[in-house]
Amino acid sequence: MFSKILIANRGEIAVRIIRACKEMGVATVAVYSEEDRNALHVALADQSYCIGGAEASGSYLNENQIISTAILAGAQAIHPGYGFLSENAHFARMCRKNGLVFIGPDPESMERLSDKAVLKELIRDTGLSVIPGTKAVTSVEEARKAAARIGYPVMLKACAGGGGRGIRLIHGADELEDAYLQATAEAVSAFGDGSVYLEKYIFPARHVELQILADEHGNAVCLGDRDCSLQRRNQKLLEETPSPAVSEEQRRKMIDLAVDAVRKIGYVGAGTLEFLLDQDGNFWFMEMNVRLQVEHCVTEMLTGIDLVKWQIRIAAGIPLNITQEEIRMTGSAIECRINAGSCGMLKMLHVPGGPSVRFDTCLVQGTVVSPYYDSLLGKLIVFAKTREETLRKMRAALCELVIEGIQTNIVEQLRIVEDERFISGNYDLSFMGNR
Amino acid sequence: MFSKILIANRGEIAVRIIRACKEMGVATVAVYSEEDRNALHVALADQSYCIGGAEASGSYLNENQIISTAILAGAQAIHPGYGFLSENAHFARMCRKNGLVFIGPDPESMERLSDKAVLKELIRDTGLSVIPGTKAVTSVEEARKAAARIGYPVMLKACAGGGGRGIRLIHGADELEDAYLQATAEAVSAFGDGSVYLEKYIFPARHVELQILADEHGNAVCLGDRDCSLQRRNQKLLEETPSPAVSEEQRRKMIDLAVDAVRKIGYVGAGTLEFLLDQDGNFWFMEMNVRLQVEHCVTEMLTGIDLVKWQIRIAAGIPLNITQEEIRMTGSAIECRINAGSCGMLKMLHVPGGPSVRFDTCLVQGTVVSPYYDSLLGKLIVFAKTREETLRKMRAALCELVIEGIQTNIVEQLRIVEDERFISGNYDLSFMGNR
Repeated sequence: MFSKILIANRGEIAVRIIRACKEMGVATVAVYSEEDRNALHVALADQSYCIGGAEASGSYLNENQIISTAILAGAQAIHPGYGFLSENAHFARMCRKNGLVFIGPDPESMERLSDKAVLKELIRDTGLSVIPGTKAVTSVEEARKAAARIGYPVMLKACAGGGGRGIRLIHGADELEDAYLQATAEAVSAFGDGSVYLEKYIFPARHVELQILADEHGNAVCLGDRDCSLQRRNQKLLEETPSPAVSEEQRRKMIDLAVDAVRKIGYVGAGTLEFLLDQDGNFWFMEMNVRLQVEHCVTEMLTGIDLVKWQIRIAAGIPLNITQEEIRMTGSAIECRINAGSCGMLKMLHVPGGPSVRFDTCLVQGTVVSPYYDSLLGKLIVFAKTREETLRKMRAALCELVIEGIQTNIVEQLRIVEDERFISGNYDLSFMGNR
Repeated sequence: MFSKILIANRGEIAVRIIRACKEMGVATVAVYSEEDRNALHVALADQSYCIGGAEASGSYLNENQIISTAILAGAQAIHPGYGFLSENAHFARMCRKNGLVFIGPDPESMERLSDKAVLKELIRDTGLSVIPGTKAVTSVEEARKAAARIGYPVMLKACAGGGGRGIRLIHGADELEDAYLQATAEAVSAFGDGSVYLEKYIFPARHVELQILADEHGNAVCLGDRDCSLQRRNQKLLEETPSPAVSEEQRRKMIDLAVDAVRKIGYVGAGTLEFLLDQDGNFWFMEMNVRLQVEHCVTEMLTGIDLVKWQIRIAAGIPLNITQEEIRMTGSAIECRINAGSCGMLKMLHVPGGPSVRFDTCLVQGTVVSPYYDSLLGKLIVFAKTREETLRKMRAALCELVIEGIQTNIVEQLRIVEDERFISGNYDLSFMGNR
């Protein structure tokens, strides 16, 4: 096991990883931007280093600075969290070159899987259904031909995409050129890579994903599904497990297929297979996230398995000693993302407590929310034996949660969990008026 | 099910009960003393009524005031929490007379079980071993004779006792008179009842208790044991489940005996059978608590069963639908009681988060801790798969917990969970230099 890990991230996920390290007896090194000097992750870590200015490009994305800080601090491994460098194969390779373990898949895997078009070919070979679509298209003309072949409506997506950026829905040929130009421009600015591909547009559909864990010794398990259909502008807002739209039989089948797929592509680490679930109950593979997800906590609440600790153990070469059969998937867990609606200083925080209520946050009294980073303030996660009880627990917890000094979406989340469509479980990606 | 419940308590347990009610869709009525007007339980309840001055005798123990408030507010039931009126048969009877459900056993049971000497006879008949001792003794002379018969050292205890008050250890005949006078005086002042009884002093010993739930339909289960040996001056400081001193075989046996005993005495509600566990592995029954315990949360973390919700359901006549076989008892949970070492106003609170960390508290920024009530500020409870991991989790959580403005015992608790004797699991009631 590592004796010291550098956490190349900020916010609630840096705090989450530091806590896991403390519980494992692993020393922690925080890195932070000038803007974050008073942040909770800095206060909690054993050591901390300022690595640049407020802009992420100069700090949390500053590969050289992070690598040299890890070496200077004597860390053996780097946990990238989510976002920032977590899916950056170049950074993972730099870690290896410098004798550091990148806590995630190896750079070759990341490269292979980061091109969504290539990934889909791999997944198709494992027996999972893949959304009909193209490899990267390089011109409006090529896109036009492909769209005609697939049949409108189609989605245009960034090959290097994620977080809902570089995506356009195209209803007919007349919309294609504008959408192509917008999506490629957005992809360049967000990912430094303007390549895009086309996909059949499936509607109505739910976003259902499968969490997997695999080690280098050939062990792999699937920790069930998560329903992430509650999105606004392709940003997840609320997640739950298990998906109310998936039958027990279907879940078993998908779990087997997912474990099989992960073994076949030789993936190592924590990862997520994302699908669109159509009205007829078909799962269409969309993409794979080769990192921890924001919403990993609902899976932790359901299964009692600590995903961050397992990421670290797997990176240290420790065999995964969980069998598929012993993974508990009874009950229901929901996460509400608590996002900032304004910048400002936190004046007061009151966190709900009691059994099976969890609030993962980076907020402490005095925390300043700045415009430089994403708006996620915390994640409220609850678990109970039935979905009905979980919903009641979430309502009570949302009513009790108090964040003063910063505008939040607490009231909006409360409206969602009180909405009859959500309560019925019969909702899809169009819930928030998306698309 | 009740539509409205009055919570006749304050502090963290009032908050705990209000949360359970909210999750069950039951409206809540808080009562409070003038001192507690800004307390969290008042803020969280749907309705709240001031029932008297700071002294508990005029407010939280004011039976008439509480009953009339319940009637005025339209509550159908009263949850007494722990302490205050929770073991008061007279109050339970007043509730019944006024058409209110007392959430706890019926007054007849409470009366029968409240005299420890009588209770022991009942328990002896169920097949459990009872500490050798006497019924109530009424004079120094009678006590002297009984002590000689039992053999020194002996314990002198208040019949109506609890919370470590009215207890004296007597090593020899020369200490008896002083101890008798002190214990009876203390018992009068604490419980309004000076009667005392004698018991064989078992040393070294551990305090191990069994949590039970029983309904009026004859269903009863035992939710495992709790080790509460970590005490200072007979006050519990830290509790864990399962007890590291009890083998799996012994636990199974004790669970069966406990369920059988509870059925035989016809007990209904949540309750706890308290034992001394001697060095030879013998369980000696001490007493029964006919109410929720402070430390109920470790059992909740281990089993995933919400004890407060079950108390309410049982009081509403809903059958207990948990079978003994399905109760999960794998893993390890520990609770550290966070006590105030001074009065004052809470300036800042930072609560640790992450998986399986729970902090039940009545603290919010601005809360004033007054000298009128007990010193419990909150309970930090953690759960993990193994005791070793639970200990590491507790250390990390204690290190992260910040309470500013009030002195606390956080550092002392940290010292306990870092103490080799505690880590080994081989500790007993003498750990904190008791006795």
